[in-house]
Amino acid sequence: MNEFEFIKSIQQRNYKRSGLRKGIGDDAAVFRQSYQDTVTAVDTFVENIHFSRKTMEPFHIGYRVLAANISDMAAMGCDPAYYLISIVIPKEWTEQELHEIYQGMNDIANQYKLDLIGGDTVSGSQLVISVTIIGFVDQNKARYRSDAVDGDVIFVTGTLGDAAAGFHLLSEGNNNDMDKYNYFIQRHRMPTPRIAFSNALKELNRVALNDISDGIANEANEIAEASHVTMNIHYDRIPIHQSLKDFSAEQQRAWSLSGGEDFELIGTVSEKDWPYVLEIAASTNTKVTSIGYVTNHQNLNGHTILIENGIGKQLNKSGYTHLK
Amino acid sequence: MNEFEFIKSIQQRNYKRSGLRKGIGDDAAVFRQSYQDTVTAVDTFVENIHFSRKTMEPFHIGYRVLAANISDMAAMGCDPAYYLISIVIPKEWTEQELHEIYQGMNDIANQYKLDLIGGDTVSGSQLVISVTIIGFVDQNKARYRSDAVDGDVIFVTGTLGDAAAGFHLLSEGNNNDMDKYNYFIQRHRMPTPRIAFSNALKELNRVALNDISDGIANEANEIAEASHVTMNIHYDRIPIHQSLKDFSAEQQRAWSLSGGEDFELIGTVSEKDWPYVLEIAASTNTKVTSIGYVTNHQNLNGHTILIENGIGKQLNKSGYTHLK
Repeated sequence: MNEFEFIKSIQQRNYKRSGLRKGIGDDAAVFRQSYQDTVTAVDTFVENIHFSRKTMEPFHIGYRVLAANISDMAAMGCDPAYYLISIVIPKEWTEQELHEIYQGMNDIANQYKLDLIGGDTVSGSQLVISVTIIGFVDQNKARYRSDAVDGDVIFVTGTLGDAAAGFHLLSEGNNNDMDKYNYFIQRHRMPTPRIAFSNALKELNRVALNDISDGIANEANEIAEASHVTMNIHYDRIPIHQSLKDFSAEQQRAWSLSGGEDFELIGTVSEKDWPYVLEIAASTNTKVTSIGYVTNHQNLNGHTILIENGIGKQLNKSGYTHLK
Repeated sequence: MNEFEFIKSIQQRNYKRSGLRKGIGDDAAVFRQSYQDTVTAVDTFVENIHFSRKTMEPFHIGYRVLAANISDMAAMGCDPAYYLISIVIPKEWTEQELHEIYQGMNDIANQYKLDLIGGDTVSGSQLVISVTIIGFVDQNKARYRSDAVDGDVIFVTGTLGDAAAGFHLLSEGNNNDMDKYNYFIQRHRMPTPRIAFSNALKELNRVALNDISDGIANEANEIAEASHVTMNIHYDRIPIHQSLKDFSAEQQRAWSLSGGEDFELIGTVSEKDWPYVLEIAASTNTKVTSIGYVTNHQNLNGHTILIENGIGKQLNKSGYTHLK
């Protein structure tokens, strides 16, 4: 099967989005969307750097790659609609394995009604998958990291550290662990972007949002920097899954603060909007937890403070704390 | 310099496009464009497959990669506005060389007023550059391969075979040749996408367009297939540069039919619109040549016929001819 046949084989027979004028099959794709802003991002995943055959089947690689991009759209409060795939394929990969990668992408694309509208398939020495995602958001409702203000409630969705626990189990665990902790393994392989929740917040004028791809320590600091505020987070309020407590305190701490790849959201809203966020969380079946508050401390702005046993320490992007 | 510092170093200080709401610096970029359709494509370039340090300086690699994408926009009759870059960097590449790649992209981006709005920089074993380009076109004015009809004039812009000649000279030529044929070398390294010409055709209701990235034999057949017509091309009307005649007849033939990477346009319009196309060509300082005509021959539709010395032979995508 050559490149053209392969592209033909993954081309959709029917498109889900009515705004699409031209999908795969010309020099470019064409779509129409009036009265909304367009949102786009690209993410690139390299074998043995971002994922490994040791912890992922080809299906999971495809699923997770696209999940990460959809999560970027959730972090923008945006409805993902289209994606384009560029893939560099080493000759060791079989056609069957490639199809499994596309099946993984297709599986999550169907859940979120995404259309594959373009792509490029080339050969190379190392598997590289680059995904461009395009979505739409009501005008002036894109959710930026720079929108946190003094007095805001800081919240996160879901539980943190799950994906890192799953990765640990797949890398070092035994078969018993795999069965017992299947939840964590699924969280590593097939994360859930929080589109329903973030899109349902659109009535709010202001929400700062960021998705947790590198660990909350990193993402909280990104909000602090972009908004020029101080993020204050209580360590004991960071939500973790019940079974995470089976692991050592050090592991729990490392995974929940800097494990990353949970693809949950961290956000801030004004205190008066907090009850509404809880309502939306309930209606979209999303666990949401308040973990702290935003302050304006001249010499701490741009930083995150982790509060433990009543003592606040500066939390670095890597997850390391030190007294300021 | 780590990934974040590098992204910061290539981030634009000012954006050119007024529709841009958010460039690099959040989970995704946001732009607004009303009353036009959005057009997007992705292209991926791998070192030693699509380009080589032997024939390109890093600056040229960046320039040419983006030129190829802009050419896709020309082939859609579309105004390119934004691009996103994903780059996989092997550790052998120096920071200086990477900056030269970005300078090459920046140079052509400035010519066409494109803004870099997103990107991802990761490490890997082989240099891979993936570009997503986004542009705009008036509603229902995107130019498809499928729009050729019986009786149309077939035209091409510029001259064909130049880039292949340049590649040949850089790969096998001596220093004397380099100076004498600098034109061809530039055409290989810094091709000119035909945006001005294709955008100026927007008054026309119907133009079929395709850009010549793999050779006219391939691109003519793509139009024939998509439009279910027969493309008839006179070999002696295919425009070549005067200096190409210094090379053997076999080289001229191979390069002009299937050399590729000239990034000229092949198109078809109705005979009544042909004088208007010539006017637009003159006003945009673009060489345009009529090379044949479209017919509707039941058993030849989907194919291209190359006419030489009054005899028509079927022209394969690869540039090979045989009697039908």
